[in-house]
Amino acid sequence: MAKVAVLGHGVVGSGVVELFHKNKDSIEARAGQHMEVKYILDIRDFPDLPYHDKFTKDFQLILNDPEITVVAEVMGGLSPAFEYVKSLLEHGKSVVTSNKELVAEKGALLLHIAKEHNVNFFFEASVGGGIPIIRPMHQCLAANEITEIAGILNGTTNFILTKMIHDQMSFDDALKMAQELGYAERNPAADVEGRDTCRKICILASLAFGSHVYPNTVYTEGITNLTLEDVAYAEDWGGVIKLIGRAKKLPDGKLTAGVFPAFIGEHSQLANIDDVFNGVLIRGDATGDVVFYGRGAGKFPTASAVVADMIDVAKANTTSKSLSWEDSAENHVVDIQTVPFSFYLRFCSERGDECEAQLRELFPDSTWLARKKQPENEWAFITPVMTGLELQERLARLDEADQLLNRIRLLDY
Amino acid sequence: MAKVAVLGHGVVGSGVVELFHKNKDSIEARAGQHMEVKYILDIRDFPDLPYHDKFTKDFQLILNDPEITVVAEVMGGLSPAFEYVKSLLEHGKSVVTSNKELVAEKGALLLHIAKEHNVNFFFEASVGGGIPIIRPMHQCLAANEITEIAGILNGTTNFILTKMIHDQMSFDDALKMAQELGYAERNPAADVEGRDTCRKICILASLAFGSHVYPNTVYTEGITNLTLEDVAYAEDWGGVIKLIGRAKKLPDGKLTAGVFPAFIGEHSQLANIDDVFNGVLIRGDATGDVVFYGRGAGKFPTASAVVADMIDVAKANTTSKSLSWEDSAENHVVDIQTVPFSFYLRFCSERGDECEAQLRELFPDSTWLARKKQPENEWAFITPVMTGLELQERLARLDEADQLLNRIRLLDY
Repeated sequence: MAKVAVLGHGVVGSGVVELFHKNKDSIEARAGQHMEVKYILDIRDFPDLPYHDKFTKDFQLILNDPEITVVAEVMGGLSPAFEYVKSLLEHGKSVVTSNKELVAEKGALLLHIAKEHNVNFFFEASVGGGIPIIRPMHQCLAANEITEIAGILNGTTNFILTKMIHDQMSFDDALKMAQELGYAERNPAADVEGRDTCRKICILASLAFGSHVYPNTVYTEGITNLTLEDVAYAEDWGGVIKLIGRAKKLPDGKLTAGVFPAFIGEHSQLANIDDVFNGVLIRGDATGDVVFYGRGAGKFPTASAVVADMIDVAKANTTSKSLSWEDSAENHVVDIQTVPFSFYLRFCSERGDECEAQLRELFPDSTWLARKKQPENEWAFITPVMTGLELQERLARLDEADQLLNRIRLLDY
Repeated sequence: MAKVAVLGHGVVGSGVVELFHKNKDSIEARAGQHMEVKYILDIRDFPDLPYHDKFTKDFQLILNDPEITVVAEVMGGLSPAFEYVKSLLEHGKSVVTSNKELVAEKGALLLHIAKEHNVNFFFEASVGGGIPIIRPMHQCLAANEITEIAGILNGTTNFILTKMIHDQMSFDDALKMAQELGYAERNPAADVEGRDTCRKICILASLAFGSHVYPNTVYTEGITNLTLEDVAYAEDWGGVIKLIGRAKKLPDGKLTAGVFPAFIGEHSQLANIDDVFNGVLIRGDATGDVVFYGRGAGKFPTASAVVADMIDVAKANTTSKSLSWEDSAENHVVDIQTVPFSFYLRFCSERGDECEAQLRELFPDSTWLARKKQPENEWAFITPVMTGLELQERLARLDEADQLLNRIRLLDY
């Protein structure tokens, strides 16, 4: 018999409780024991719910109840989630979470505490909602060395980009539509500025490469600067723009990790992941490329991942040693400016032909692009592979009248 | 300490042994114990291999060695694989296999024997090569009801169809190319006639729906009848032809399962799975659609799935109760002719306009298709949804001079 508690009764939390009631038989069959939600922690009251008697506002009640062995933290945010989860693990209770911020910022520490107290800290729901990613990646790792991860990890920005690409909607209009449909929050900064994607790629990279990748070490660029002109040039090049979270092991054992909009070839498996869907590509030395695709957010997809983790926790009798990672040394992630890429560059200039001539001289062997209604004084092209530092150097030689309208990296998946 | 044996030193078997040596440290770290290949069973000798001393031709040696706790069966075929695996499980040894024929034909029985002897029978490598599918699906099942599965499960046929679609190669030329590249066997019947796909969809359906789906109960149609004309009409309709293995739960609890070429819309996640790649779509009530994509075959992808299973077996201390299914009642899978589909039909007739008029009368509300160089006496269209029986009835009313050139189902994923 496992008595469980759910911290937070928001979108995901209510989904967890509902799934527990709806699929009770199959959940218990899989867990091999009775499982029952004993407490739901929330500051609000829900007097009309059939399980209203399970609500409490008192975290200590849960912490000090020896019957509680598994807790689902689905509140989100760092505080008080971090303090709660830490205390619970220290009190010998296993925790599962959907909280990507918590795992991305505090994962190494919490995994360490879980191990010390012989309990588990699982977080399948923190990346990719209902798509099984953490465990399949863990499974891939068993007989593989993972060399690279690239993912479309945020449904809101992917919805906006899809509208820009397929319906020629402007960024602002697409964002407004996403908000109206409930895909984007009123304050969409964490999504459109790439921070949500950053947390998720940090979690995947930490697990794949074994040492914690902290969000503040990862170059993060959002999609707020993208225009329909960039989308049109990407189409001429033969692809689309996607917001990608990416991590790759370098030959010296260090990592490059980054979040940025990227040109992706139209035949890439990531190019056709549209709307609010997520997709993650895992490149392994034995498996080759494996891609996982599905709904990256939403009440029931995410709740189903939380419940699956709770079942696994109930079945486990020791700490998982391999679904874990160590804390990391400084300078573990290299400066993205030192990593070579091809760049898409778009310029305008009052200097006209003179600017174009200098661009052609500064960036030989580039592929020049065209779009409908392209103004005479606008140019766009794809540079050969170079580091960001090298690019900066060349750009510094341009005239003050020349304006770099956008700069987007290319990725080859 | 787990001492293991590998039955068969073909493509997959040699990959397993090589991975065991190459990734020994990480495999042992994940298994939490030393793991060592003690025996390799093969009728051939390999005197030049560094591990030539591990080879044996004597299965009894493995069966009766109490040190052996885990065995990988990677020989393929039903006999002697079935007898070997059965004996091993009865002797209290866990078995992992890449043998889809074995699992599809004997899965329920072997899982039952494994449970009786408190050991495990795992088979991740039997479907989708190195793509984690069995376990993620098992994970999805924890808090989900899976309603439907559809997959491109055979790389050989998918390669042939890709060449037909993108390079306008004929079936025969594409098959020849696949054989030259080593993607197709000299006798390609099991692939091109759909039997390989059938075994794999049987395994997935058995796990998803809990009772064994036997290959001989599943309607199976291959790709040998497909022509470039059909490919052209599919393009006009707005999609591609793919060989799909599919299983779906019906409202009365019975199943429909089938393997057949199908028209798939160009925006489907299955439409862009090209070349030798595989992809599986799992539809769950909580997760929605989840797709897994990757290399469905090959030495190291498949071997890595075998090794991952061996690690899981070494870590497990009891039989997995939920990665399993029961034997099935008769009439568990309904006759596909009673299941409604839209059909693509292509006709020619010497009756000319008269035939066309009758087709338009017999199949009102159809969508008529066109192709380049379409002969005057050829017609192709998409029917409304109807059962195969209903279709047969209508076709029976046509003239003997009218020839049905092809009939392909539509699927909507």
